[in-house]
Amino acid sequence: MAEKPSRGLADVVAASTALSDIDGRAGRLSYRGYDIHQLAGVATFEEIAYLLQRGAPPGREELAGYREELTAGRPTGALAAASLPAVARTQGPMAALRSLVSLASADDPDAGSNEPGPNLRKAARLTAQQPILIAAYEAARSGRPAPPTDPGLGLAANFLLQVTGRPPAPRAAEIFDTCLVLHADHTMNASTFAARVCAATLADMHSAVVAALGTLSGPLHGGANEQVMRGLEAIRKTAAGDPVDAVGDQVTRRLRRGEKIMGFGHRVYKTEDPRATHLRRMSQELAADGDETYYRMSRRMEEVVLAEKGLYPNVDFYAATVYHYLGIPTDLFTPVFSASRMAGWTAHIIEQHADNRLIRPDSEYIGEHGLTWVPLDQR
Amino acid sequence: MAEKPSRGLADVVAASTALSDIDGRAGRLSYRGYDIHQLAGVATFEEIAYLLQRGAPPGREELAGYREELTAGRPTGALAAASLPAVARTQGPMAALRSLVSLASADDPDAGSNEPGPNLRKAARLTAQQPILIAAYEAARSGRPAPPTDPGLGLAANFLLQVTGRPPAPRAAEIFDTCLVLHADHTMNASTFAARVCAATLADMHSAVVAALGTLSGPLHGGANEQVMRGLEAIRKTAAGDPVDAVGDQVTRRLRRGEKIMGFGHRVYKTEDPRATHLRRMSQELAADGDETYYRMSRRMEEVVLAEKGLYPNVDFYAATVYHYLGIPTDLFTPVFSASRMAGWTAHIIEQHADNRLIRPDSEYIGEHGLTWVPLDQR
Repeated sequence: MAEKPSRGLADVVAASTALSDIDGRAGRLSYRGYDIHQLAGVATFEEIAYLLQRGAPPGREELAGYREELTAGRPTGALAAASLPAVARTQGPMAALRSLVSLASADDPDAGSNEPGPNLRKAARLTAQQPILIAAYEAARSGRPAPPTDPGLGLAANFLLQVTGRPPAPRAAEIFDTCLVLHADHTMNASTFAARVCAATLADMHSAVVAALGTLSGPLHGGANEQVMRGLEAIRKTAAGDPVDAVGDQVTRRLRRGEKIMGFGHRVYKTEDPRATHLRRMSQELAADGDETYYRMSRRMEEVVLAEKGLYPNVDFYAATVYHYLGIPTDLFTPVFSASRMAGWTAHIIEQHADNRLIRPDSEYIGEHGLTWVPLDQR
Repeated sequence: MAEKPSRGLADVVAASTALSDIDGRAGRLSYRGYDIHQLAGVATFEEIAYLLQRGAPPGREELAGYREELTAGRPTGALAAASLPAVARTQGPMAALRSLVSLASADDPDAGSNEPGPNLRKAARLTAQQPILIAAYEAARSGRPAPPTDPGLGLAANFLLQVTGRPPAPRAAEIFDTCLVLHADHTMNASTFAARVCAATLADMHSAVVAALGTLSGPLHGGANEQVMRGLEAIRKTAAGDPVDAVGDQVTRRLRRGEKIMGFGHRVYKTEDPRATHLRRMSQELAADGDETYYRMSRRMEEVVLAEKGLYPNVDFYAATVYHYLGIPTDLFTPVFSASRMAGWTAHIIEQHADNRLIRPDSEYIGEHGLTWVPLDQR
């Protein structure tokens, strides 16, 4: 018999996975047994996508082959390409990506098959295409052609090239690559879970990724990094004196009114999110090259929220200023998150298909019972 | 702390709902407290969609207003309309619907708002548009224009008009309308659950419906009615003598080899699915007007599977022949299911948004621990 409901399924184990593991008390995250503190700044996103999708770190030749596969997989197909101008004119970034990835299945030669080979190839293509789609969307809505992809650049550097219109500094590309590494997977978050619920009906990878994209679009999941940046921008714009002082005053006031500050706290981590450690350091490094205000505002906000509420910054908090310093438009922060998480989503879909059981929970009925239907002509 | 995993979340209560209730032992299904045996053949699909989305049966004026809202909501918007020819040429029915509904958000004036008013209006529009999109898809891939919608016809009759190209007999429209009533909601099935997981991040209704459509496309969920029909067609085509005798022989053989027969058994019902009772009767009635072979084959299959395995037909089994007799192409059976279930999905999304909590389960980690990352140049 069914138990009492667990609202939000907190602490309910919904699936087994060998992809990532969190120790919320110790503030540790690992991918397939490798602590992310070992990976950040050392492994490239391509190595991590390979690790997640294919099970073990690639050797040098395997990595070269996978990089070639990613580069060859960049073209998003005729249907998505033809639809792009109208989509970019009429849909916001996350709705557009949901549409474009759904359309892209039309041109994927492996669409519809859930076998291991096709799933691995689709995982590589979807991972390669997501940053291309985001940059193409940004160009299309700005009324300019997207810069051609550079086959000599990896996924992170090519994205910065295409979205900003100029070749990134090598260190900027490295930092962005590390951001992608840090966001690649995170156990059974809502979008990953949606992907697995979808895949568990033996729906195909594109359907499951489209479900994940829609789920990530919600402000309780993917939207926080964007809201962090908009919050910083608003405070800076309205500050009478030093915006760093203004942050302290305003955040204190808002916390005492019981308001929530975006970018802090996490259902799983009870201490600092290990990803935040790296993102703070990278935000500081990028700030040192130019405008330090947003970084200093962020530090002040962190101090106040910790003192007042005991809450630590989560992955979204310093990602906001890092992306801002890298020249990424604020409303593309959640799309950028999706470009990284694509590695994890596709790996979870592969894992679900490999050992599948339909995910069909129960519900608790809280409505009325035994009502008598009165036909319309007697109502 | 997390419990041991419940594979597939069977018997785990994931949400509370006042929309539908199943008594699997007694074989009962009710919508907001009304047993479907009271509704089948009595209530129209429009009344049931209203009941689910708005909470109570409509009075006569309320129903007239809702019907007007549905008729006004039929146009699917410029972006979906412009994309239709290319989508119909290159995507299968469920992938096409996933794309077209995703594109349709561009032209929905309430897209992006999760407030009660906008959600009710979007629920009506999505319910009105789904059969229109299916018929438009069928016409586009057949290279003919879709017959214009008839504002004098309800949702069921207008769909049959548009998909078959001729006005349906009144009794055919009534039977199809009852099919839509029977499929409108079914507690926490996989597609509905995916919609709620998505909506629980405060993603908007279009995102959640797109997640549901992708989830329904999986053969373990929405595809069974189509597979039932293809199975019957294959047996009929290859039968040396009477196809009814061939069914008995072939199904017995397949069951004894341990194969699964599509359209039988259900994780929830331990007796006859109450929807099957009505669908069997309607299949018999439609068969009596023409070719009885598929109905008689179905009856024989039902007898054999019950005798050999003790399994009852589920909602998909007799839906297959009913849709076939109504002239609906076999690969549109799952899309037709989605046109009905849209009423339930949208009602569940409204319910989720009205009292929301993020759905974020735990996972059990089954991979390796404490591995040491060897940098690429040392691998």
